[in-house]
Amino acid sequence: MDRKIVLTIGRQFGSGGRDIGLKLANALGFGYYDKEVVTMAAQESGLCPEVFENADEKVSDRLAYAFSMGFPYMRMFTPHADILSNEGLFKIQSDTIQNLAEKESCVIVGRCADYIMRDHPDCISFFIHNNTEIRIQRILKMHPEITVEQAKGLMAKMDKFRAAYYNYYTNKTWGNAASYHLSVNASVLGIDGTVAYIQQFVKAKYGL
Amino acid sequence: MDRKIVLTIGRQFGSGGRDIGLKLANALGFGYYDKEVVTMAAQESGLCPEVFENADEKVSDRLAYAFSMGFPYMRMFTPHADILSNEGLFKIQSDTIQNLAEKESCVIVGRCADYIMRDHPDCISFFIHNNTEIRIQRILKMHPEITVEQAKGLMAKMDKFRAAYYNYYTNKTWGNAASYHLSVNASVLGIDGTVAYIQQFVKAKYGL
Repeated sequence: MDRKIVLTIGRQFGSGGRDIGLKLANALGFGYYDKEVVTMAAQESGLCPEVFENADEKVSDRLAYAFSMGFPYMRMFTPHADILSNEGLFKIQSDTIQNLAEKESCVIVGRCADYIMRDHPDCISFFIHNNTEIRIQRILKMHPEITVEQAKGLMAKMDKFRAAYYNYYTNKTWGNAASYHLSVNASVLGIDGTVAYIQQFVKAKYGL
Repeated sequence: MDRKIVLTIGRQFGSGGRDIGLKLANALGFGYYDKEVVTMAAQESGLCPEVFENADEKVSDRLAYAFSMGFPYMRMFTPHADILSNEGLFKIQSDTIQNLAEKESCVIVGRCADYIMRDHPDCISFFIHNNTEIRIQRILKMHPEITVEQAKGLMAKMDKFRAAYYNYYTNKTWGNAASYHLSVNASVLGIDGTVAYIQQFVKAKYGL
């Protein structure tokens, strides 16, 4: 097939979005990119991978604080240097994502890929969320060393990071239904059921 | 079938959510309730239908203004009487919706039905949105007497009303993906395609 289809997946922390993305890519025979985007951006730019990892789907603490206070505070408190360096890294990562999408049909998790690919004629954007209790259980499975309270804190913090990053780099709102083509609570059909259901959306559009 | 399934549909103004709800109800043989909820609430309470219509999915202008300013302003500016009278009507309408759901499987459009039915074991909540250009075309078809600019204004105003109403009466955020089980941009598969796709979600859960 000559047409390259790009499926992007935004996700709440602990929602199962990563698993769903991977299974979806396997089911469709598409490439799968999550953290891989960061490694590739580092390779392509010649910059140290840690530079990207430290900035990955995060804005700096001061930037995050400014975001939480709203736009006027953002302008007041954000040091120019923070924005410039993060924007430079974002630009490199965007180029990596666009190059990927030219080469093969793929699933890209996070990293504002839906916004970066917004002019791509065959990009479908998904957002995966889940019930709080299920998310906490999933986080505890990933991090058996932490308590339930710590899992709740981590969940809130990671979502806040992702939202701040997304809202800063796009003109959309993270987690807002209108920002994506399809948003699903993965608790209704479970992980595998949700993969199959999302696949139906792609099939209905492209008759794959 | 003894089980009563309740499908609730939140929707952006002009998105096609109403049409999708009606077609979904017909396809599944479920009851369909939109404005009907208002008429029934009036009948059941003995109050004048206009009282409900004036408050339908709206909060008063002062309340809407206060909402737009955020929570502290809401408390400062909202006159107690507004809240009390609107809350009274909301309670009557909630009872109407709960009674409906006891009698038959149904599709209910708007009116915070997802929140009202939150403890119902077989309630699935949907949110329908659409591309701005398509929404404007749909609004112009509904109101051929208005201009494109007026359609844009109406679209923004109606969404604002619905959001203020929803956010006031629920502990959730209107249009936020996490507030619903499934949110779909109806432009991807079109109205009929979206109806069929949503039906798949219900089928996947209940094997209907």
